[in-house]
Amino acid sequence: MSGVTRRPRVVIIGAGFGGLYAARQLANQPVDVLLIDRNNFHLFTPLLYQVATCALDPSQIAYPIRRIFRKNKNIHFRLGTVIAIDTHGRSITVREDNAEEHIEPFDYLIVATGTETNFFGNTDLQKRGFGMKDLSDAVTLRNHILRLFEKAAWETSETERRALTTIAVVGGGPTGLETAGAIYELYNYVLKAEYAHLQQMEARVILLEAMDHLLDPYPEGLRQAAYDQLKSIGVEVMLNAKVKHLAEDHIELEDGRTIPTHTLVWSAGVKANSVTAMLGVNLERGGRIPIQPTLEVTGLNGIYAVGDIAHLIDPKNNHPYPQVIPVANQQGSLAAKNIMRAIQNQPQEAFQYHDRGIMATIGRRRAVAYPFYKLQLTGWFAWITWLLLHLVWLLGFRNQIVVFINWVWNYLTFDRSVRIILHQKQYLPEAVKKEEVAAR
Amino acid sequence: MSGVTRRPRVVIIGAGFGGLYAARQLANQPVDVLLIDRNNFHLFTPLLYQVATCALDPSQIAYPIRRIFRKNKNIHFRLGTVIAIDTHGRSITVREDNAEEHIEPFDYLIVATGTETNFFGNTDLQKRGFGMKDLSDAVTLRNHILRLFEKAAWETSETERRALTTIAVVGGGPTGLETAGAIYELYNYVLKAEYAHLQQMEARVILLEAMDHLLDPYPEGLRQAAYDQLKSIGVEVMLNAKVKHLAEDHIELEDGRTIPTHTLVWSAGVKANSVTAMLGVNLERGGRIPIQPTLEVTGLNGIYAVGDIAHLIDPKNNHPYPQVIPVANQQGSLAAKNIMRAIQNQPQEAFQYHDRGIMATIGRRRAVAYPFYKLQLTGWFAWITWLLLHLVWLLGFRNQIVVFINWVWNYLTFDRSVRIILHQKQYLPEAVKKEEVAAR
Repeated sequence: MSGVTRRPRVVIIGAGFGGLYAARQLANQPVDVLLIDRNNFHLFTPLLYQVATCALDPSQIAYPIRRIFRKNKNIHFRLGTVIAIDTHGRSITVREDNAEEHIEPFDYLIVATGTETNFFGNTDLQKRGFGMKDLSDAVTLRNHILRLFEKAAWETSETERRALTTIAVVGGGPTGLETAGAIYELYNYVLKAEYAHLQQMEARVILLEAMDHLLDPYPEGLRQAAYDQLKSIGVEVMLNAKVKHLAEDHIELEDGRTIPTHTLVWSAGVKANSVTAMLGVNLERGGRIPIQPTLEVTGLNGIYAVGDIAHLIDPKNNHPYPQVIPVANQQGSLAAKNIMRAIQNQPQEAFQYHDRGIMATIGRRRAVAYPFYKLQLTGWFAWITWLLLHLVWLLGFRNQIVVFINWVWNYLTFDRSVRIILHQKQYLPEAVKKEEVAAR
Repeated sequence: MSGVTRRPRVVIIGAGFGGLYAARQLANQPVDVLLIDRNNFHLFTPLLYQVATCALDPSQIAYPIRRIFRKNKNIHFRLGTVIAIDTHGRSITVREDNAEEHIEPFDYLIVATGTETNFFGNTDLQKRGFGMKDLSDAVTLRNHILRLFEKAAWETSETERRALTTIAVVGGGPTGLETAGAIYELYNYVLKAEYAHLQQMEARVILLEAMDHLLDPYPEGLRQAAYDQLKSIGVEVMLNAKVKHLAEDHIELEDGRTIPTHTLVWSAGVKANSVTAMLGVNLERGGRIPIQPTLEVTGLNGIYAVGDIAHLIDPKNNHPYPQVIPVANQQGSLAAKNIMRAIQNQPQEAFQYHDRGIMATIGRRRAVAYPFYKLQLTGWFAWITWLLLHLVWLLGFRNQIVVFINWVWNYLTFDRSVRIILHQKQYLPEAVKKEEVAAR
């Protein structure tokens, strides 16, 4: 190299699976990488429902981003929210949580901000529904469920007590199934024993699905297996059930049925993160960014989008690639590789998806998996496979040990140990803390 | 027994050490016990500073109260805040977090609500100081420190960066020492490596004490040992340092010195919880409730106060018993026993304190303990003793295993794994959640 050559600068927005795999691929390469996220941790989302249901601690599925790249001196992390992208001037604007703004230039950009809960414009849902997308959703839901049971212990009206201990989960995808199953087990193995003196206290967990079947992308046999497994552990499943209105103490369905409850967990839809609007391109269905097989955003040179936020048609089935972790991982790596190829003036490579299948676990000792090395798995073997794979995929050896111990503990004792209602003071530098606490 | 004999009803306010030991003593006795607390967990406060400094998860030191008494059918737990005590009508009023109120009668009452942070009426401190008394204090401080380091990473002014990474801890008691030591180690072993590219970024941890020595109740040799140990790990110790004013970005001391910092941890004073005012008795110094050697509140029959909130002179040294866990444990048990004696028309027993000594740990491999079987311990042996005893005292076998693994992990790897900035949504049933999130 002659003289002072500036190393190309790659900015990655989002440290989910797509952003993480991209940054890992660029570690120790001759580029400077700026990785931006709104959180200081990478979240292992497949176990989020276990945080919501008192089985795991937040830190066990949230790994500090700086820890991951501690030894990679070319990867720089910054905490903040991207509020503008200048595709022509090649820079982004990042806002810190104290509202200070920073302009950061890039030569190459990878957008990997994923999706957020989609309430489809229903303001009731937005106000009172519980999402299941990020760590704060999970902790909020955990606190809420535990609070309702404590409230039920005070309650003298049997009808009201029953509403307090009825939990509705909307969405027949893997998240909905896993959450409903785990909430029922939390009640059945733990809370039931501890509120036993309340004779009439019985919890209902209801899974609502708008279609006439669960697990839409799965084959019929597994859909039925999932349905049977849920019923067998005690979850009520309501198919063809569309939510019309959510009040504070009940749900109204479109067919006129009502469910008295104070809790609706909404896992029935996602939409692309709003960062998509900053690119100035026409978005696809679900607000997803149109990308080329090279993963470059259509019409924007050197700007890539990967994972749940990106929209690319799979030539094998003419459907867009699914919004699942393996797609994000593989796209993240490829975007990084394509950036290195562009820097070295080599041709871009097209995305080819290696499908490793999808799995969902339903409570204790039950799961479905497909296609798993071309097999359809159900029941106990699928469950063990699920456990082992998720343990291996989890970041950080300490997390793996501690999660393993928690699982063994939970399995043997039927306990769920993380049952604390955590009041948290907000970080408001100039606010009077005592007033906040008093106002809660 | 003839006819329908109503079992006497004992109400215990507070599930800290005093309340917990009282309830345990009354488990399976012929009384009905109502245990009230503002939290649904018992907190193992000696390890609170480890939650604040990213070494442990909240749930590892917070054990669900219902879990403890799952098999004791005569112990009933309710979540709520006591807002009134009717000493003549023999009832208390409890408020749920949704403001609903309940009147609960009692035959015997044990008040065990402990202390809270005392800012001595200093409104600056109250607004901007960080307490270290409850779980939400610890999580708030953890989030704050991690946020400041992320802010420092963005900061271009070296002066401001230095202020952001300077942490002041006020109070030379065990909590102050342990917190200061652990914060410095968090910086030295973890954060330093992860912000290494910021050349000038160096953290300062300053322990401020108003007196001319640390650890007031300890003998001179141990005070000096603690001082030397703190210095040797890198903590700056300022004696005779009285805080006059706390601004957002600096502290002013009474002698005119200023310290540029955004963080003041206040562990320099406690006062009795405000429930004391509801008893209608003249309070002692620090707002503590005057009690008789039988632990009954002076002038109130069948109403007991135990632990930090109670004031009783130790005849051995003419000082009030110290506000430490062993006193609370022993008083809690005795109050329960005296209630059973009263029910059985037996004479009350007077309190006799079995002093097991006090310990403080100062970072990695250092501690002081006294009197420990009449010995003064310092250094490595004191530290191992501290570790083992705290592990044994911790409630719950899962917690013991997981804390042990975390400690071994932290010790071997110098890591602190629980480094997540946890945004938490507040539970406001009728609030628009999106607005809250946007306002943060």
